[in-house]
Amino acid sequence: MPLRGIVPPLVTPLLDNDTLDVAGLERLIEHVISGGVHALFLLGTTGEFASLSYKIREDLIRLSCQFAKGRVPVLVGISDSAFTESLNLARKAALYGADAVVITPPYYFSSGQPELLEYLKRTMVQMPLPLFVYNMPVHTKVMFAPETVRAAADIPGIIGIKDSSANLAYFNQVQYLLKHRPDFTFMVGPEEITAEFVMMGGHGGVNGGANMFPKLYVDLYNAAAAHDLPKVMALRDKVLQISTSIYNVGQFGSSYLKGLKCALSVMGICNDFMAEPFHRFNEPERKIIQEALEKIDYKSLL
Amino acid sequence: MPLRGIVPPLVTPLLDNDTLDVAGLERLIEHVISGGVHALFLLGTTGEFASLSYKIREDLIRLSCQFAKGRVPVLVGISDSAFTESLNLARKAALYGADAVVITPPYYFSSGQPELLEYLKRTMVQMPLPLFVYNMPVHTKVMFAPETVRAAADIPGIIGIKDSSANLAYFNQVQYLLKHRPDFTFMVGPEEITAEFVMMGGHGGVNGGANMFPKLYVDLYNAAAAHDLPKVMALRDKVLQISTSIYNVGQFGSSYLKGLKCALSVMGICNDFMAEPFHRFNEPERKIIQEALEKIDYKSLL
Amino acid sequence: MPLRGIVPPLVTPLLDNDTLDVAGLERLIEHVISGGVHALFLLGTTGEFASLSYKIREDLIRLSCQFAKGRVPVLVGISDSAFTESLNLARKAALYGADAVVITPPYYFSSGQPELLEYLKRTMVQMPLPLFVYNMPVHTKVMFAPETVRAAADIPGIIGIKDSSANLAYFNQVQYLLKHRPDFTFMVGPEEITAEFVMMGGHGGVNGGANMFPKLYVDLYNAAAAHDLPKVMALRDKVLQISTSIYNVGQFGSSYLKGLKCALSVMGICNDFMAEPFHRFNEPERKIIQEALEKIDYKSLL
Amino acid sequence: MPLRGIVPPLVTPLLDNDTLDVAGLERLIEHVISGGVHALFLLGTTGEFASLSYKIREDLIRLSCQFAKGRVPVLVGISDSAFTESLNLARKAALYGADAVVITPPYYFSSGQPELLEYLKRTMVQMPLPLFVYNMPVHTKVMFAPETVRAAADIPGIIGIKDSSANLAYFNQVQYLLKHRPDFTFMVGPEEITAEFVMMGGHGGVNGGANMFPKLYVDLYNAAAAHDLPKVMALRDKVLQISTSIYNVGQFGSSYLKGLKCALSVMGICNDFMAEPFHRFNEPERKIIQEALEKIDYKSLL
Repeated sequence: MPLRGIVPPLVTPLLDNDTLDVAGLERLIEHVISGGVHALFLLGTTGEFASLSYKIREDLIRLSCQFAKGRVPVLVGISDSAFTESLNLARKAALYGADAVVITPPYYFSSGQPELLEYLKRTMVQMPLPLFVYNMPVHTKVMFAPETVRAAADIPGIIGIKDSSANLAYFNQVQYLLKHRPDFTFMVGPEEITAEFVMMGGHGGVNGGANMFPKLYVDLYNAAAAHDLPKVMALRDKVLQISTSIYNVGQFGSSYLKGLKCALSVMGICNDFMAEPFHRFNEPERKIIQEALEKIDYKSLL
Repeated sequence: MPLRGIVPPLVTPLLDNDTLDVAGLERLIEHVISGGVHALFLLGTTGEFASLSYKIREDLIRLSCQFAKGRVPVLVGISDSAFTESLNLARKAALYGADAVVITPPYYFSSGQPELLEYLKRTMVQMPLPLFVYNMPVHTKVMFAPETVRAAADIPGIIGIKDSSANLAYFNQVQYLLKHRPDFTFMVGPEEITAEFVMMGGHGGVNGGANMFPKLYVDLYNAAAAHDLPKVMALRDKVLQISTSIYNVGQFGSSYLKGLKCALSVMGICNDFMAEPFHRFNEPERKIIQEALEKIDYKSLL
Repeated sequence: MPLRGIVPPLVTPLLDNDTLDVAGLERLIEHVISGGVHALFLLGTTGEFASLSYKIREDLIRLSCQFAKGRVPVLVGISDSAFTESLNLARKAALYGADAVVITPPYYFSSGQPELLEYLKRTMVQMPLPLFVYNMPVHTKVMFAPETVRAAADIPGIIGIKDSSANLAYFNQVQYLLKHRPDFTFMVGPEEITAEFVMMGGHGGVNGGANMFPKLYVDLYNAAAAHDLPKVMALRDKVLQISTSIYNVGQFGSSYLKGLKCALSVMGICNDFMAEPFHRFNEPERKIIQEALEKIDYKSLL
Repeated sequence: MPLRGIVPPLVTPLLDNDTLDVAGLERLIEHVISGGVHALFLLGTTGEFASLSYKIREDLIRLSCQFAKGRVPVLVGISDSAFTESLNLARKAALYGADAVVITPPYYFSSGQPELLEYLKRTMVQMPLPLFVYNMPVHTKVMFAPETVRAAADIPGIIGIKDSSANLAYFNQVQYLLKHRPDFTFMVGPEEITAEFVMMGGHGGVNGGANMFPKLYVDLYNAAAAHDLPKVMALRDKVLQISTSIYNVGQFGSSYLKGLKCALSVMGICNDFMAEPFHRFNEPERKIIQEALEKIDYKSLL
């Protein structure tokens, strides 16, 4: 402890709205583990957790743990608006051998900060696995305030935070408030800022792009951890090229998810079927993604 | 058709986070039906749907339908971020004899308007019951745009809309766009505007306060439908007294829910236990609610 | 007191970014006064106040008071992020014979509620005219909370509120909290809800559409004040037709302003030049507005 | 070109709402220039620009340019909701010898991206000085989208961007899109992220804390520019200590401004009077700031 490195928030390969693309899942997990990633994160925002039935979520946990074969730790998203369902997911995660769980605030009816802290306390009483708090304000409508994170870090079992706010000023403040806790893990979501985050002492990135190019993000992490700035700059350029060309082809907030799944499909890794309410790109958008991948010279990144 | 009148969004009486207060539920249903309400709405925002496990949601549907004994239509909230779970809930609702279902947009990862319309279309293909769309932007982060509602109204099986935005300018525009559809039901959420909404041609209110004082809201509805303005004014005053004194005792957005459940407990109707992440009021706040109820002379409203 | 009726928030006719369309302004004022409006409101959101230089604002106040010739009260918007400039505008308004001023919260750096109340208190110390508070959260990012309005109503010189939030549940609560103040004026912004607002005891509407069709909105006000529901329904339909066809031709939030000014230009009342950062509609959009006006049979409304 | 280094967004020292603290201004400017800052930025958010009368803004520009004596470039904020007033301010800035101006989007009525780009184009036609665009979404409600910045960078006279969104993922994307423009200046607002921003190729920070401790921020910049990571880490800790202890003493968004001005007053640099609608801290909060300064061992930072 802390956990360090690149933790891809795995996309959930699907054949249809209720069927996992099991072969795709296995290929994806092999792909990222052989790319050197340090852990897997199932059922995050990138994994479309909120759109999946509980049955599929359980299947995904079971199969992923099986495919991972203990080579890397497995983190499982248990975010839910319903406390009991979060606990159920955590129990499944423990049952199938996952290493930790990850939770956002309840995301339908927003809570105040004292309510959030109390919620974490009550959650941990019954939690079978260590837990990361997951800051994702664009979807949950609420931030874990810095003081809330500081207090949460004192709850036994809470071992780290993943921040996807992209607000690095906020996250630096959180880290400063927890300077006395070298064991507490700080992970950042947006891949566009993983490099500087790690150079300045952060522990790693939960980067969607690592589904496609695990080696690139691992190299970036290693360069940043080694303070090899020229290498960091070169690799980050690649990351920014990916992020400005693959993730904004569509019109809506779903563009990131659609672009990522489309690229994985173009690369032959897994199916690009998306859970409701989203739908895979049609041929014209797919072609744009294809061209973007070629411009990135993506085969050189594998 | 359309559905008309007062439809209380039932609170969900709980003994603890995973146990229904079954006796309280039966009392509550008797209370509102004997108060003259025109239908029941289970598993809305007021019913803490998003905080409840699926097991409890199913129990609640089954028991409520049983307790209602067909005396009034039963509407069931099936909102979920996961399509499949929404469908599962709808099937349970059909199985236990409910009359219609109600759905918000998926509320974790926001959709664009075309994505929302497509989502409704796909939902309806497998939907066993008629459906109301449910506009609740404060929690779902997205409005059904007027043009989206107009298009949704053409999908077979979509029979009405409940709007909880409190933006009556928006809702009047929606109604105007659907003038050619006298069969389409328009229900408004906020009880503070039910009177004028009904006077101007709206069909009724899904008013949380009707859990406490069904007769008051039914009288208000009747007066408004009869265009009896002096009576409307007098009754609306009572409604505004309730809303300004019972719903804002706490500090956070949850004040409405906490105040309502606390009042129902003070009135002896059901338990005030709240599902995570919220917690019932402590003694000081309960005392304020008690005093507010007395100031309202609440027994005269029963 | 209170002020009652239809108060058009006058558009500001311009020849270019720094030149008033003086003839257009005179025609516009004649048009609305002869249409029966009860007061004029200069320099509101519809008047593009925030986009105008102080010189033009002063000219507009002076000329409008002159053109109004005391036939109706003149209200002047003095909203500004700078306190001193608001006071300067108020002094100009007093100098040229205006009757009252209207102010939003400072709209760059948002204030908390106690800061807002304190701000109103300090403003009133030096205010030469009676003042309306102006709730416009979409632009100012902050609401006057109901309790803030209640407290503000006790400050000498504050005589009313204009609410453009479109949240009638909120505004009904505000009115309820001020039941003991029959002299306090409640005006609503959105024309889509003026009818019900007035029927239920509100005092009138500050309706942008009254620039085009003053008589229609005055008739609507009169019918509502007289509780003539059938007439209200018929007239409100016209209002909703206008609002759904004239105000949403463009892509952005500015569509309302652009559509309104374009229609006034089509009707020959004033120039449709818009202050930066907006620009008048081009020919295709103008044609859509023209057709919408014909469909409304606008000449029958004059 | 590009501009590099630490550019304090100067607070505006005031004796009362309409009177500059001229002696304080002179002391402040000497303080920051002798601390080694690379330029001054007048009339930014930290300078309370939006709360100041035009007369004071002009006085401030004139006096600051005079006090700066050409030792460092002077940048002047000309943000305004009114185009003409922005131009007037720019002309004053040019007249008194400032070097560049800085502008946010118009901040009352929000614009769409094409409207923003068009606005910048029209602004530049008459602009007497080079211009930085200023991204400040929390106050202006709108971001300059990456593609808008890319297009804006092609407008002659637009020479850089200051981003105060704190969203470094966004800003990295913007920089990537402008890789072909090594002359374009990228400045970041939040001091908590200046270090990593500069290490990764950014040009500097417009950091409020540099009003108090110019040397600290200049040292941080130099260490970052020299890629001296151990030194960067040590200095950034100090910056985070300041930001977590000085800027969040109050309850509202104004806490940052109040804390900063209070600290400057405690340090004897300038008056802590604040322009309406804000007010300086009272004794209890001032004491907290005093203690925070002592804990920081602030004299060691001068």
